[in-house]
Amino acid sequence: MRTIKLIIEYDGSNYCGWQIQPNGPTIQGELEKAVFALTGNESRVEGSGRTDSGVHALAQVAHFLTDSDMPGEAFSRALNAHLPKDISVRESMEATGDFHARFSALGKVYRYEIENAATRPALDFTRVWWVSWELDENLLNQATLYILGEHDFTSFADAERDGGDNIRTVERAEWRREGRRLSFEIEGNGFLYKMVRCLVGTLVEVGRGKISPDEFIEILQKRDRTAAGPTAPPAGLHLVRVNYPAGM
Amino acid sequence: MRTIKLIIEYDGSNYCGWQIQPNGPTIQGELEKAVFALTGNESRVEGSGRTDSGVHALAQVAHFLTDSDMPGEAFSRALNAHLPKDISVRESMEATGDFHARFSALGKVYRYEIENAATRPALDFTRVWWVSWELDENLLNQATLYILGEHDFTSFADAERDGGDNIRTVERAEWRREGRRLSFEIEGNGFLYKMVRCLVGTLVEVGRGKISPDEFIEILQKRDRTAAGPTAPPAGLHLVRVNYPAGM
Repeated sequence: MRTIKLIIEYDGSNYCGWQIQPNGPTIQGELEKAVFALTGNESRVEGSGRTDSGVHALAQVAHFLTDSDMPGEAFSRALNAHLPKDISVRESMEATGDFHARFSALGKVYRYEIENAATRPALDFTRVWWVSWELDENLLNQATLYILGEHDFTSFADAERDGGDNIRTVERAEWRREGRRLSFEIEGNGFLYKMVRCLVGTLVEVGRGKISPDEFIEILQKRDRTAAGPTAPPAGLHLVRVNYPAGM
Repeated sequence: MRTIKLIIEYDGSNYCGWQIQPNGPTIQGELEKAVFALTGNESRVEGSGRTDSGVHALAQVAHFLTDSDMPGEAFSRALNAHLPKDISVRESMEATGDFHARFSALGKVYRYEIENAATRPALDFTRVWWVSWELDENLLNQATLYILGEHDFTSFADAERDGGDNIRTVERAEWRREGRRLSFEIEGNGFLYKMVRCLVGTLVEVGRGKISPDEFIEILQKRDRTAAGPTAPPAGLHLVRVNYPAGM
């Protein structure tokens, strides 16, 4: 069996997240249907990780096994013919047999988009979190510095899952403003369940002056989810990139 | 009666264009319903011009008359409470009685977005034209220079409407590439029906090498719609700004 690697873009608005489940359509489910329609293989399409309902991806990575002899590059357009308009395989290629979308991944980049304005957005309303409080990006970036490096992120992990090791390394995290749009980009070696949305929800409390950057450090140090602020809504979150070893 | 000026953002995907018509929902229709719900006034909401079905606006301008005593700035959020999620009044203000969204307008800026890639986009698929031919932005910009200034744009006017004066002035027109995204911005004192989409459709023929920039000049000079290329689809088109005299 050959291993095919896929780079997938999707708008998560109309799906119950990445992972197959009985309650509604999922990205993984649509991809597996497309692979079956194209190749006849009932293959698992294994993603680099799950995304929640309403979360988007510019370049989610997945792989599947097939006995098809189609050239690796041809799968993208061939699969797209079987996929809905809000899911697209942007690239495909044959990978080595040891490639695994989840286990080979070294890290990820996420972007969170906020429309910071007195009035709600109409274009992109499924792609941003509308925040009408005035947010100070200097405060946002000041607090964000404290999450760089290796930390126990228990305070920003969803209480429902996990247990075990909540230590992750954030390599890069920054807020940028362009007009009414505030965008937060974060790169790390791994993310706890809902970690980016918990961070953004709490950082917004800093940006609007309800929590000081010093209080933000205390929240991080408490390792207690109940200490942090609310979880930001899924619509603003985009999986931007998955990092793999060179040559994978 | 007071004149209220509105700056409106909308995603045109789910509407039969700006102008009220019997066959389906329109942006103007939704706005008039919202004005009535808020003020009780059966006012006409007069736009700076029509946009076709599927065309979007970042800042369409409109005005209406009302006897409400609400502060001008308060209309935006108050109207938004009565509008669907894909239409938003981003700003509102009281205007002088001589302000008219259409007759006072001095010009407009449009942007047309192309996703130039081998595979189709999934995010934003209602907001771009997917063009998989390789487009050369130097050729695009070379031909675009010829439309700057005052010209008879009959070749790029939709044959169905118009008649009369097809002379317009293009003050600025330029293509920019950012990765897979090609975006065309054009500013002028007025635009014929479907003029931007006709221009884009023909310029894309230049960009893919089917028409030379010299042949493009000939098409312009012919003043004959049948000489030009196909009309680009509505999804990529965005009304970006309407220009008014200072203080309006």
